Amino acid sequence: MIKAGAGETPADVVIKNVRLLDVVTGAVTHSDIAIVDDRIVGTHGYYSGARLIEGGGRFAVPGFIDTHLHIESSLITPFEFDRCVLPRGTTTVICDPHEIANVLGAEGIRYFLECAERTVMDIRINLSSCVPATEHETSGARLEIDDLLPFRTHPKVIGLAEMMNFPSVLATDPGIIAKLAAFQGWHIDGHAPLLSDLALNGYLAAGIRTDHEATTAKEAREKLAKGMAILIREGSSTKDLDALAEILDENTSSFVALCTDDRNPLDITEEGHLDSSIRRLIAKGRPLHHVYRAASHSAARIFGLKDRGLVAPGWRADIVLLDDLEACSVTDVIAAGRLVRPEAFEARYPVAPVGLASMKAKPVKADDFIAPANPKRNMTPVIGVKAGLIITYRESATLEVSDRGLLPDLAADVIKVSVVERHGKNGNIGRGFVKGFGLKAGAIASSVGHDSHNITVVGVSDADMAVAVNRLITLGGGFCVARDGEVIAELALPLAGLMSLQPFETVAEKLHQLRLAASALGCSLPEPFLLAAFLALPVIPHLKMTDRGLFDVDAFAFVE
Amino acid sequence: MIKAGAGETPADVVIKNVRLLDVVTGAVTHSDIAIVDDRIVGTHGYYSGARLIEGGGRFAVPGFIDTHLHIESSLITPFEFDRCVLPRGTTTVICDPHEIANVLGAEGIRYFLECAERTVMDIRINLSSCVPATEHETSGARLEIDDLLPFRTHPKVIGLAEMMNFPSVLATDPGIIAKLAAFQGWHIDGHAPLLSDLALNGYLAAGIRTDHEATTAKEAREKLAKGMAILIREGSSTKDLDALAEILDENTSSFVALCTDDRNPLDITEEGHLDSSIRRLIAKGRPLHHVYRAASHSAARIFGLKDRGLVAPGWRADIVLLDDLEACSVTDVIAAGRLVRPEAFEARYPVAPVGLASMKAKPVKADDFIAPANPKRNMTPVIGVKAGLIITYRESATLEVSDRGLLPDLAADVIKVSVVERHGKNGNIGRGFVKGFGLKAGAIASSVGHDSHNITVVGVSDADMAVAVNRLITLGGGFCVARDGEVIAELALPLAGLMSLQPFETVAEKLHQLRLAASALGCSLPEPFLLAAFLALPVIPHLKMTDRGLFDVDAFAFVE
Repeated sequence: MIKAGAGETPADVVIKNVRLLDVVTGAVTHSDIAIVDDRIVGTHGYYSGARLIEGGGRFAVPGFIDTHLHIESSLITPFEFDRCVLPRGTTTVICDPHEIANVLGAEGIRYFLECAERTVMDIRINLSSCVPATEHETSGARLEIDDLLPFRTHPKVIGLAEMMNFPSVLATDPGIIAKLAAFQGWHIDGHAPLLSDLALNGYLAAGIRTDHEATTAKEAREKLAKGMAILIREGSSTKDLDALAEILDENTSSFVALCTDDRNPLDITEEGHLDSSIRRLIAKGRPLHHVYRAASHSAARIFGLKDRGLVAPGWRADIVLLDDLEACSVTDVIAAGRLVRPEAFEARYPVAPVGLASMKAKPVKADDFIAPANPKRNMTPVIGVKAGLIITYRESATLEVSDRGLLPDLAADVIKVSVVERHGKNGNIGRGFVKGFGLKAGAIASSVGHDSHNITVVGVSDADMAVAVNRLITLGGGFCVARDGEVIAELALPLAGLMSLQPFETVAEKLHQLRLAASALGCSLPEPFLLAAFLALPVIPHLKMTDRGLFDVDAFAFVE
Repeated sequence: MIKAGAGETPADVVIKNVRLLDVVTGAVTHSDIAIVDDRIVGTHGYYSGARLIEGGGRFAVPGFIDTHLHIESSLITPFEFDRCVLPRGTTTVICDPHEIANVLGAEGIRYFLECAERTVMDIRINLSSCVPATEHETSGARLEIDDLLPFRTHPKVIGLAEMMNFPSVLATDPGIIAKLAAFQGWHIDGHAPLLSDLALNGYLAAGIRTDHEATTAKEAREKLAKGMAILIREGSSTKDLDALAEILDENTSSFVALCTDDRNPLDITEEGHLDSSIRRLIAKGRPLHHVYRAASHSAARIFGLKDRGLVAPGWRADIVLLDDLEACSVTDVIAAGRLVRPEAFEARYPVAPVGLASMKAKPVKADDFIAPANPKRNMTPVIGVKAGLIITYRESATLEVSDRGLLPDLAADVIKVSVVERHGKNGNIGRGFVKGFGLKAGAIASSVGHDSHNITVVGVSDADMAVAVNRLITLGGGFCVARDGEVIAELALPLAGLMSLQPFETVAEKLHQLRLAASALGCSLPEPFLLAAFLALPVIPHLKMTDRGLFDVDAFAFVE
């Protein structure tokens, strides 16, 4: 490396003739980039090498780093995620295997670590801090500090993932304190929506350093002032970039990074990944080299990845070649010194899927979805949903009662929702009503159901609800749409009931078909599965459905 | 910490009523600062605590971090350095025990680590990479990779110290490569004066990340562009702040830090430590909060100290209280949560000094300094020195020959210089002539002699040279001035021949007396001991004297 950098011996790879963007000063310099093994050894000069990549005057910037995401939310395996996202310039991702851990526990984390050792991109892991996220639904697993400790020194592990249970932090719950204590000196990732003032101070006193949950510039500015790094999130369901763009400037760019949290392959295909966030931040007038800095060097520094984040001698050769800086039009990616080509993905030594038998629910029948009337009241509480929001609203309806219990009211757009426990723990079925899906017939069901990933089903017909749920049990998990006793669209997600074994292109196509099928049932939501997947998360206001019943998040208690 | 941060229980210490400078945005906020143990738990709010410190509206900024220095060059022990410098706001120093390691080897490093565990300030260690610095003088010790490895995981160790032997890096010398290889992933500190272009790339390809040797803005800008962090140095002998100030701006402040390298207690007392650098950078128009950022958070991030660098909840309570930000007028310092008071220094558990018998030279006589004439030539090469420069010049003189060899020529200011090996290895004495000291009588001697720390003596009289050298042997090392067979001023440095066992105030006073005594001999240099200490360093151009003889650094060979 030294000899090649000094120009005395040929480099392994030389990218000829690029315009190098300095994310420190904003300068652009014509240069070659010399690489040996996985390391940049020369810039700001001209080199010869065993293999040449013609830069053709393209721009070169450091590889992008997604600082917080759940790969499971892409519905594809880490290997497919690698193949889908790396060519868009994201060379490092810091993920939290929170979803698979809620289903499979430590086995899910082991699976991710094994994949991380073999992907072309560099996948780093923050260890899931809150499994289960809540005691108000039935999860597949529980991770205490003793379950996490064996992973702490794994070379792919950075620290503790998003500490979302901020009430328990502030209440100094012993299990949470044990986790925080064990990760002092490691990175501890935060997740503190709307936390402010002294409560935020208490949370930060635990050594928590990052946040991706700020949704307003004001919230982000308070967190920055208190030493948090802000990760500007732009996912499929949660979108904060428009609100937070203004906080990224010359002063803050070393304290701001980017993340996607949850982003599905349709959005990645249509809009992009971090390349999309970069493009939009620049379009909003954020200073260009500071945007690229936030996407690379700042992210690396914030998470302690000392080897990467600059295109400079001695740094990891994660490089993105672009036709245009403003448009962030990625044309080639070099990951750890290798030009990213399909063969690199084909050459990965495969990892056997896990959790293929994770759907442990027993088949259901139509009668399981009968919702008996509460003789004590006339009004039935109803969960209200709106497109693009994972928070729900408290609504109510006067529903007709038949010999099959309370009936949907299609005129009022009130239909049934159930959550079926599927981890083989207790066979719970929670039953209730939801408003806002627009369904006029059939049912749609999902085995992705944050955070415990039971089966969520919404529908007009008890029979179709049963067909949809039973189909998911047969598939080992997934999404499906049923009508008139038939499954009319489906996507199997047999890996822990969360991820497909298919190529990302197939998954994107099937997601498209599922949307069309739901729409054919009258569904008025553009993303009904995404919304269904969050109906069961009883830490998000206001009214949620879990396998244990209807939960009032504000009262923090089940509705009778 | 969590409960106190949230305001639910009292903090251990509360600094009431400060104006908090945000080194990220530059905002100034009225606030209290709540502390529990060594950690800040609350800012941007009002707190109660077991102990109150009245801020009185003073400014609060993060503690300063000196990113590269040799405590030995302060001539005092790490304990005295702590007491001298911490009250000036420097709460963390990253030091390289290079000088003591050249005398005592691993024992010297162990001594520093032991001190570092007990000082009030946080002393961190980079392990000396180049002991000896050169093969052209006799050192007391040699540190190979196997000597360094046992220290690598010590909690006070950051990484490998200044890799000054850049020719051997570029030549891929196996001993150097072994050290670089072993510290990949740790911090590797650089030292690469004037290195540029592809040679600099080769050096950086080794994973070296920081530099404190840039002496022009142009040099610093090339290094920044190639991913190096620049440590702006302002020492007693080496002063780069004026030249480098311009590189510190909004773009670069996260990639720039401050250091002192070598700074003696007289300068610290008279001008200050990092507080002086901060004051001067602001006076030169550098943006204020970016200067404070470079002095704190940037330094911490560059060297991987994740726990410090901001005044914010969850961060180490290293805080400086100032009356005035522009003047950097430090009035109080909080180190790891403790208000710095004399009692804190008195409470340190003492560390026994080491190297008290390191002066192993046998007594010398006047005849040992006879410089025989070279019958092959009339002209004698002479080392030329100038005030404030550690580089020397190649001069020559026609000297009178007597039965005692070549004689000094006082009219031409050409006097004798000798280096006496003192590690008990071979008893070498190098002999030659130097021009520029202005001495008209007597001799001055020093056991500080970079980097091997033999005894350097310059003088007019062979007899006085012997008196001075023999006195240093008796003292166990130090500085002294002799005249007419008598010692007229001295400072004992018995700890490895490098450091005093006296309080820093005494050392400063004795340094003052030594200057006066040298001046009384006619010495025209303001810092003759500093200059004498660098006369033996054969890696600095152009002509140097070692125990093995006169060395031509440009030809990289001894002069016949």
